Amino acid sequence: MKSSDIIMDFERSQRCGISEAVFSQYKTVTQLEKILSIAEQNQTSLLFTHLSYEKYNNLNNYWQKQIKYHEISQCAIFAKRESVNEKEQTHIAIVSAGSSDASVCEETLITLNYHGIKADLYQDIGVAGLWRLQQQLPNLQKYSIIIAIAGMEAALPTVLAGLIDTPIIAVPTSVGYGVATGGHVALNACLSSCTGGIMTMNIDNGYGAACAAIKIYKKIIKNSK
Amino acid sequence: MKSSDIIMDFERSQRCGISEAVFSQYKTVTQLEKILSIAEQNQTSLLFTHLSYEKYNNLNNYWQKQIKYHEISQCAIFAKRESVNEKEQTHIAIVSAGSSDASVCEETLITLNYHGIKADLYQDIGVAGLWRLQQQLPNLQKYSIIIAIAGMEAALPTVLAGLIDTPIIAVPTSVGYGVATGGHVALNACLSSCTGGIMTMNIDNGYGAACAAIKIYKKIIKNSK
Amino acid sequence: MKSSDIIMDFERSQRCGISEAVFSQYKTVTQLEKILSIAEQNQTSLLFTHLSYEKYNNLNNYWQKQIKYHEISQCAIFAKRESVNEKEQTHIAIVSAGSSDASVCEETLITLNYHGIKADLYQDIGVAGLWRLQQQLPNLQKYSIIIAIAGMEAALPTVLAGLIDTPIIAVPTSVGYGVATGGHVALNACLSSCTGGIMTMNIDNGYGAACAAIKIYKKIIKNSK
Amino acid sequence: MKSSDIIMDFERSQRCGISEAVFSQYKTVTQLEKILSIAEQNQTSLLFTHLSYEKYNNLNNYWQKQIKYHEISQCAIFAKRESVNEKEQTHIAIVSAGSSDASVCEETLITLNYHGIKADLYQDIGVAGLWRLQQQLPNLQKYSIIIAIAGMEAALPTVLAGLIDTPIIAVPTSVGYGVATGGHVALNACLSSCTGGIMTMNIDNGYGAACAAIKIYKKIIKNSK
Amino acid sequence: MKSSDIIMDFERSQRCGISEAVFSQYKTVTQLEKILSIAEQNQTSLLFTHLSYEKYNNLNNYWQKQIKYHEISQCAIFAKRESVNEKEQTHIAIVSAGSSDASVCEETLITLNYHGIKADLYQDIGVAGLWRLQQQLPNLQKYSIIIAIAGMEAALPTVLAGLIDTPIIAVPTSVGYGVATGGHVALNACLSSCTGGIMTMNIDNGYGAACAAIKIYKKIIKNSK
Amino acid sequence: MKSSDIIMDFERSQRCGISEAVFSQYKTVTQLEKILSIAEQNQTSLLFTHLSYEKYNNLNNYWQKQIKYHEISQCAIFAKRESVNEKEQTHIAIVSAGSSDASVCEETLITLNYHGIKADLYQDIGVAGLWRLQQQLPNLQKYSIIIAIAGMEAALPTVLAGLIDTPIIAVPTSVGYGVATGGHVALNACLSSCTGGIMTMNIDNGYGAACAAIKIYKKIIKNSK
Amino acid sequence: MKSSDIIMDFERSQRCGISEAVFSQYKTVTQLEKILSIAEQNQTSLLFTHLSYEKYNNLNNYWQKQIKYHEISQCAIFAKRESVNEKEQTHIAIVSAGSSDASVCEETLITLNYHGIKADLYQDIGVAGLWRLQQQLPNLQKYSIIIAIAGMEAALPTVLAGLIDTPIIAVPTSVGYGVATGGHVALNACLSSCTGGIMTMNIDNGYGAACAAIKIYKKIIKNSK
Amino acid sequence: MKSSDIIMDFERSQRCGISEAVFSQYKTVTQLEKILSIAEQNQTSLLFTHLSYEKYNNLNNYWQKQIKYHEISQCAIFAKRESVNEKEQTHIAIVSAGSSDASVCEETLITLNYHGIKADLYQDIGVAGLWRLQQQLPNLQKYSIIIAIAGMEAALPTVLAGLIDTPIIAVPTSVGYGVATGGHVALNACLSSCTGGIMTMNIDNGYGAACAAIKIYKKIIKNSK
Repeated sequence: MKSSDIIMDFERSQRCGISEAVFSQYKTVTQLEKILSIAEQNQTSLLFTHLSYEKYNNLNNYWQKQIKYHEISQCAIFAKRESVNEKEQTHIAIVSAGSSDASVCEETLITLNYHGIKADLYQDIGVAGLWRLQQQLPNLQKYSIIIAIAGMEAALPTVLAGLIDTPIIAVPTSVGYGVATGGHVALNACLSSCTGGIMTMNIDNGYGAACAAIKIYKKIIKNSK
Repeated sequence: MKSSDIIMDFERSQRCGISEAVFSQYKTVTQLEKILSIAEQNQTSLLFTHLSYEKYNNLNNYWQKQIKYHEISQCAIFAKRESVNEKEQTHIAIVSAGSSDASVCEETLITLNYHGIKADLYQDIGVAGLWRLQQQLPNLQKYSIIIAIAGMEAALPTVLAGLIDTPIIAVPTSVGYGVATGGHVALNACLSSCTGGIMTMNIDNGYGAACAAIKIYKKIIKNSK
Repeated sequence: MKSSDIIMDFERSQRCGISEAVFSQYKTVTQLEKILSIAEQNQTSLLFTHLSYEKYNNLNNYWQKQIKYHEISQCAIFAKRESVNEKEQTHIAIVSAGSSDASVCEETLITLNYHGIKADLYQDIGVAGLWRLQQQLPNLQKYSIIIAIAGMEAALPTVLAGLIDTPIIAVPTSVGYGVATGGHVALNACLSSCTGGIMTMNIDNGYGAACAAIKIYKKIIKNSK
Repeated sequence: MKSSDIIMDFERSQRCGISEAVFSQYKTVTQLEKILSIAEQNQTSLLFTHLSYEKYNNLNNYWQKQIKYHEISQCAIFAKRESVNEKEQTHIAIVSAGSSDASVCEETLITLNYHGIKADLYQDIGVAGLWRLQQQLPNLQKYSIIIAIAGMEAALPTVLAGLIDTPIIAVPTSVGYGVATGGHVALNACLSSCTGGIMTMNIDNGYGAACAAIKIYKKIIKNSK
Repeated sequence: MKSSDIIMDFERSQRCGISEAVFSQYKTVTQLEKILSIAEQNQTSLLFTHLSYEKYNNLNNYWQKQIKYHEISQCAIFAKRESVNEKEQTHIAIVSAGSSDASVCEETLITLNYHGIKADLYQDIGVAGLWRLQQQLPNLQKYSIIIAIAGMEAALPTVLAGLIDTPIIAVPTSVGYGVATGGHVALNACLSSCTGGIMTMNIDNGYGAACAAIKIYKKIIKNSK
Repeated sequence: MKSSDIIMDFERSQRCGISEAVFSQYKTVTQLEKILSIAEQNQTSLLFTHLSYEKYNNLNNYWQKQIKYHEISQCAIFAKRESVNEKEQTHIAIVSAGSSDASVCEETLITLNYHGIKADLYQDIGVAGLWRLQQQLPNLQKYSIIIAIAGMEAALPTVLAGLIDTPIIAVPTSVGYGVATGGHVALNACLSSCTGGIMTMNIDNGYGAACAAIKIYKKIIKNSK
Repeated sequence: MKSSDIIMDFERSQRCGISEAVFSQYKTVTQLEKILSIAEQNQTSLLFTHLSYEKYNNLNNYWQKQIKYHEISQCAIFAKRESVNEKEQTHIAIVSAGSSDASVCEETLITLNYHGIKADLYQDIGVAGLWRLQQQLPNLQKYSIIIAIAGMEAALPTVLAGLIDTPIIAVPTSVGYGVATGGHVALNACLSSCTGGIMTMNIDNGYGAACAAIKIYKKIIKNSK
Repeated sequence: MKSSDIIMDFERSQRCGISEAVFSQYKTVTQLEKILSIAEQNQTSLLFTHLSYEKYNNLNNYWQKQIKYHEISQCAIFAKRESVNEKEQTHIAIVSAGSSDASVCEETLITLNYHGIKADLYQDIGVAGLWRLQQQLPNLQKYSIIIAIAGMEAALPTVLAGLIDTPIIAVPTSVGYGVATGGHVALNACLSSCTGGIMTMNIDNGYGAACAAIKIYKKIIKNSK
């Protein structure tokens, strides 16, 4: 195919507050290398999501060295120099129900950090052992936004939303089996929660939750300082 | 159709521990009246479930007077004389998330009482206001079986199962809208709960939960006394 | 059923930032009247959602007069005196794709106003006639939060999120037929949008979107002033 | 991720009657080894479920030797010394429809035994050859609880529940193809059984069925002795 | 619309062995009257299925008198004079699980009789009270074809197919609620039965089961005499 | 709600080749009357679809007289004066499987005629009596576009596409019951046809099929003359 | 697990007319070898279905030599000596839509032959090229039973049933992609066919179709000779 | 199986305007080689779709050399000599939302070219960066047909159809995860688009879209020149 087949949207960050990320699952290695070349020519950094270890390994050596790969979350970062400012206040907490949700936690954290925004992690505090969540309530109360990540029946966002006045972005995960396979039960539980106001993302979409939090951070929190 | 078209299973109680109930939703008024006649001839009592008020009203006057109709739960009882023994200990608690679940609560309670078994009701203690559940925990701890009834995301059975060692029979209800329409989210949330061991019934199946509790009561609890 | 069957969670507003609303679809008229009595005794106001006109009409005359009923959105308000402060800045825009989405728009607006928060309405600006949306972009840019309401294929939140840096809460609606019946296509389109960061609510859940916006408003916007 | 990412709920056994098990399917080898270390430090035993042979093989040698792996059911046990008391009466029967259900049978049995509870196995007695079930009826009558495991159309729990007064916990399995793929037909057949009172678990959830039986055993049967 | 909008397929009986029936659910009263006129002109009889009582009542008086209406099964017959030959052997048995299945039984029987074929009815012999089926086994053994009709979990065709060598045509019915709503569980249970060889029809499709039996009767049984 | 809540897209015809139609199912009578007023002020004609007879009857008398209502298809037309040119060649054929599909046929035809385009109707020529279709093949061969309308298993578009070189736009209909309820089987059969190139519309979407044909007619056929 | 875990149903053939087959997909190699040993001890032959080539290859050498493996259909036969009688008339035709359906065709044929029954194959005569089917109609007319196998939209059984009076057993196959993935479209198309009387099997269930045909053959055809 | 098991439909091109293509996913290597032999004997060219690289590699060397394989789209072409005429006007544009859709783009283009028809490609112009689409509008306006390819929420065809009067054939793709897995969201979004007249193909069915365009080209465009 002779036509130009990749058109980067480099101005998305300025227009929408979040940079374009490269959803890598359905792209060929050749396409990914071409995207990296375009970014290099434009002196732009890039965030890759859903980049399998096998596909990462098939990139040629030059590109493998240029990017930082995170295996648990299948994310990768190209040419991002600036880091988060450790002195700034942390406004965002990432809360997960179980250690099986670690990959989504990491994707969320990396996306936030890639955009220069800090977050604190509270993992493995699901409702099966409710004391773990209750213990952290005073801490969680201090954040402006909570990203709550849970699979199976995903009761965590519901219970948390009944205990706290912080806005909650829920990320259902595909952790589970039988009727929970694929994460649809967790998704629907978040959407139909008896506690009003849970904002829900697609299954396993830590990237999207981070984008939502970034938009709130940049448009509201940052402006108000 | 000339053939005998109704064959009652009167020995079910002796064989299975629970009496045959008449699921009335798809039966004609003529069939229901025929069933009542057979029961009257056999001097047997009967429990009707899913009997709409309209259908009850279309029964002839004689049968209307012979049965006791419960409108909220659409249950009816024919010729049941013996009642529960108020002096006996109560082994079963019925717990519901919201007042919208009242019809399922009533169906459960009527079925238990019809079989001569007592139960206590704890309604409207869902997790959106968790203090309501926590307040009742010491009371709930005392029962042998808890029937937990909830719609929408049905987090109640999961949270309760993480706080208590009592066996829990969950009844998901069709309370909800959007993705929760029909009660499938509640059902699947009970089935895929992160707290192991929740025993689940069909959507809105208070009758079935009562039957399960009756079997446990008769086979285990009663025998052990 | 002798037990107390309704337990109001009056402290929810203080704990979670939003008041308990009465989801009325599965409650009996008797239950609704009992809830109104409790609220009256506690000198509390109440918001009812999913209250059909027929059910409203079956309330006794006293209660009918005490509440303000909104037929399009099937909402009702009891004993709410304070209104929104017209002098305050408006931080929230409600955007809808078509005039068929009016009921969800109204439920959203009423819930916000009930909590004392203002919002501006931009209706019938879906992508079939894209110029309508583009015309409003400069206005929409000024808000802190946009609630985007759309049915059928729900392309509106996606297109809007690609043009603007304002956080977007999407409410898919059940407007449509054939494969769009029930609103699941609109819901899934919001969840799987190619533009990252759309926060999604249950189908037709204008109440929930308002709750989310209220939480962001109270926790972040109001605090920063 | 620097934060503590695993929080064990060691008091679950005391609180809920069943020990926390490690659902291993979505955990990394690193996470599993960390969990084992925590357990070793706390001198606690552990039950692992859904641990694939490949993942087990990727654990380091030390941990491989410390745990006992069961390949058919993909379960593993760490540091469990006490065994079931062979002199005690057996209260629980595990019944399966076909030899294809063996993995779920084993998961159920291992979970029961891990908690010190005995059970007898009656495998391959599905309704296609009904004489096999009828032959065992006198034996099955003697137990307090029956766990009935079946895939495909899962008629076994229904037929059994019509012949016996013992409480039945049904475990639908994913055995089947075409419309039966994934086990949803078996699940729904158990939930909608014409014989009232079947208590149903998630698909392939032998662990959950065992947990339910353990709760009944500890709360009711053991107390009554 | 000026074009001819109804084209009867009168030669279907000769070509396919079964007459065209008029599926009336989506036809207007005007269309039904036009179809009756065409049939009258062609001196042909007609079978109507899915004809609601309301629609039947809206036909003009002349047509109401010309057709025989069966309310339970919503079938009607026009101008059929010849009846079944009572002296012939009966080759087909219709077996149903419960009296709620009576409408499908009647549709099956009427379709068979309309084509001049006899059948015997065995209703309400579902597996919840297995003795009812076992009692009839010697009788059922004598037929060439059994049409087995059941809703809910539809275990009847499976159990019957394991006990008998007669070919079984299964008709799942929409009797049930919760997960069984619509009859999909019954359908899938028939399709995925552990006993090989059950031939399955669409939900509630008694007409279709009769057609299949008629084809077998005319092509094989009748020819062999 | 004070804001302007209806924004007509009058230039759609010029921009897209088809006029905006008013999808009336979810609009209130008040909204419909407002839309009519706007159209009257703009001296524009309007096409209404999915307008129930009840809703049409609730319009005030003035508007009822101004519009022409088609009950079978639930369409209505306001202020359309020009008609189709009977002398022009007919390029489009509408083919339907059964007379139950008449409402979709009419919606298709009215939409075409509203845009000044002619079409011929071939109804009730489904594959159950294949001779009806084969008889019309020479006629159908002459058209530029065929709109094929079918419910149930919708084999008609597939069979037709295997016999003819005319482009086919398929409209699956919701005619059917059991698994065919809602029209999803018909839709999926069109989409997965073994004969390549069938272009498929939403279930019952005769309006959409007409729009597609209009676009092809105006952009290609008309231009080529 | 010490208990007997495999109970063969050797008298099924006598009771039901078809022999027990070993559905091998979920059985371990150890279980399959045990089943073979039992069969050898009982001097019984066996039919294996869904036996993957990999699993077959993992059987020990002795058993590999004792069984005849068919790779396309993943069937295997143990110790079957008698073959079909070539002199007998053939009563059954197997008809398939495409060459992609060959595996299901072979499973059907092998099952029939295993039971000593002949069948003729007519492959690749789907409706995309209708002449292929029409060419064979005179031949197909001669059989007592037709087994029609088709994937994708599965129009073949419907079209065939409209042209012929032979009873048709339809086997939908999982051939297809997109909406046709898994074979559900083909299944539902068979179930909702506009031509009455198609008897449908589970997706890809050639074995079941053969069983149905065997029952009809043995109970009706054979008896009538 | 002795019967002829492959029957090519070589006259399809003349009858239907498009050549038979070989859907290779479910065919064995042996079948594919047999099909190639038949084509070679008939001196016919062939298009293969869904031919995996592994299966292509398993063809014997002779056939591998005779066909041209396209790995991205898994298409292959045998013995096609004539090419598209570069001097002819291009009537068809292929538009895609993202570079992940490249495989479907290529399948579409190859199918068109195989039939001697030209098309231009406009890739990666989805609505997340709307300027990319708007930039191409003047170009796109010039074509007679647009094939619009998109995954995830598939807003591209909807937005494009609201901006242009060119007929649009939409191909939803399986690009996406969570609720978008498999492409059903994209498919349903195209089918339920608020902009009337989008003609939709099965998920990933670039071949089918090309066939539709070829039929329109040959029947209408070509004829009109």
